Amino acid sequence: MTNYSFKQYYRNRLERFEAYLEQSLPPIPKQVSILSDSMKYSLLAGGKRIRPILLLTTIECTNQSSDFALPFASAIEYVHSYSLIHDDLPCMDDDSLRRGKPTNHIKFGEEIALLAGDALLTHCFYLITTSQVTNGIPPETIIRIINILAEKAGVFGMVSGQVADIKNDPNSSPKESLDFIHKHKTGALITAAIQIGALLADTNETDFQILTRFGEEIGKCFQIQDDILDVVGSKEKLGKSPGSDERNNTLTFPGIYGLEKSYELANHCYEKAINYLSGTELSTDHLKDLADFVLKRDH
Amino acid sequence: MTNYSFKQYYRNRLERFEAYLEQSLPPIPKQVSILSDSMKYSLLAGGKRIRPILLLTTIECTNQSSDFALPFASAIEYVHSYSLIHDDLPCMDDDSLRRGKPTNHIKFGEEIALLAGDALLTHCFYLITTSQVTNGIPPETIIRIINILAEKAGVFGMVSGQVADIKNDPNSSPKESLDFIHKHKTGALITAAIQIGALLADTNETDFQILTRFGEEIGKCFQIQDDILDVVGSKEKLGKSPGSDERNNTLTFPGIYGLEKSYELANHCYEKAINYLSGTELSTDHLKDLADFVLKRDH
Repeated sequence: MTNYSFKQYYRNRLERFEAYLEQSLPPIPKQVSILSDSMKYSLLAGGKRIRPILLLTTIECTNQSSDFALPFASAIEYVHSYSLIHDDLPCMDDDSLRRGKPTNHIKFGEEIALLAGDALLTHCFYLITTSQVTNGIPPETIIRIINILAEKAGVFGMVSGQVADIKNDPNSSPKESLDFIHKHKTGALITAAIQIGALLADTNETDFQILTRFGEEIGKCFQIQDDILDVVGSKEKLGKSPGSDERNNTLTFPGIYGLEKSYELANHCYEKAINYLSGTELSTDHLKDLADFVLKRDH
Repeated sequence: MTNYSFKQYYRNRLERFEAYLEQSLPPIPKQVSILSDSMKYSLLAGGKRIRPILLLTTIECTNQSSDFALPFASAIEYVHSYSLIHDDLPCMDDDSLRRGKPTNHIKFGEEIALLAGDALLTHCFYLITTSQVTNGIPPETIIRIINILAEKAGVFGMVSGQVADIKNDPNSSPKESLDFIHKHKTGALITAAIQIGALLADTNETDFQILTRFGEEIGKCFQIQDDILDVVGSKEKLGKSPGSDERNNTLTFPGIYGLEKSYELANHCYEKAINYLSGTELSTDHLKDLADFVLKRDH
């Protein structure tokens, strides 16, 4: 983290978020308590929570409290958590370690992990359409948020990124494929977090577009840094074994551009992101700190 | 089917539905055309389409055209289709045949089948929040529909039913477990179809409750009949091998109550369903015909 006050800011938002997230879990019928255990296990496993924090921070750019948006921040994390569970399954990446703990299917079995992922994805749409949550928010905004979330998590975003990651497209160059994968697999949901924040903050259309561009660059920066950490990171900090990309033959920035050029590209995205923000009069200091955090994180 | 005019009615709605469903599929990036193929393969594999037809017919009870509701009817079928793909996976029922064709993972591989299921589930929420679809419908209605769909497909419905089906609850009797499984695994989504139809038709609260009760009984009747057909049905008509429940040690009505009593129970649900409809002045003739079809179907 860049400075003391931002550290405090992040920690405070993270604490509020974790508290809300835990109580956002549905009361699951006791007959299927294993489903509840499996969902909790992955959803409440900690992590940086970068997507929800980005969402909350985007709202605070308009100098309003972001507390009312905690359910939406949670919804984004439900989607992220489901995607990790399904990614780790034997038929996908076949990973046994995530955030320093056994992956969901190692702990609960493949069939429960599959269903816990399905349940997390489905429940996010339930959560943000309950009357306690929607109360006071224009219904048109809720609908647009759901549309963006489903767009960025589905065939126009994350799922297509996953498919491209496991099935090489013979008609694309490695650089084109890498670009497609990262834009869809990681970038889409990060952009969605910021767009949903902007919609909840009711920014004007110009600011919405600026924040969207910012989100796209931060998403790219995040993924390049992820690829770099898989090469140079330590197992303790990552909570998983580094080098998994190379073992899995994954297309990565260091693999295609080399490490030095990858650092340059990450920096370039960061600078573009910061530049976009100069076009708005919103209070974007904390967003800039977050971009800095994304660039400099070591796990 | 009970009579000629109902046969015509069903065929007509089915044709309109199939035509809409096909063009409802998203334009998927060409880099991941296999995802598109896999989604299409399962979604457009035919079938009775009982859930969408129930939704459309519920709307027509109020003597209005149901054409505007085709996207919502499709959304229900997207959810049903995703659930079948995930059910058939090796870690779940490990089925290789569905509707007379190889199951999705046999055709496309496990990882693509998993992601096609994820994509279908996610895309249903996209579809019903696009502006072409929501245009003219009160936004509060759209939000309530999404809430019901996510409720009945997720931890309060289908997913919990699935979990109960594969993990026996030691604290429930077989009869209690069977009741829980069927209510959640099949009944929930059938009830959702009717509730969504009622919301789109803007029925009054009393009629909404009556239609809900009708849906619950029809859902139960449908599942008992499904269990019976797994014992007495033919492979040709079912499109899959009968006897799979017994092989998989699944809790079923014939397994617990015997065949004769199961027929009685299905009849009892049918009669309760028809009885509920006597409490409303809606035009429910076609709904009654559908209930009759559910009871008497042979596949």
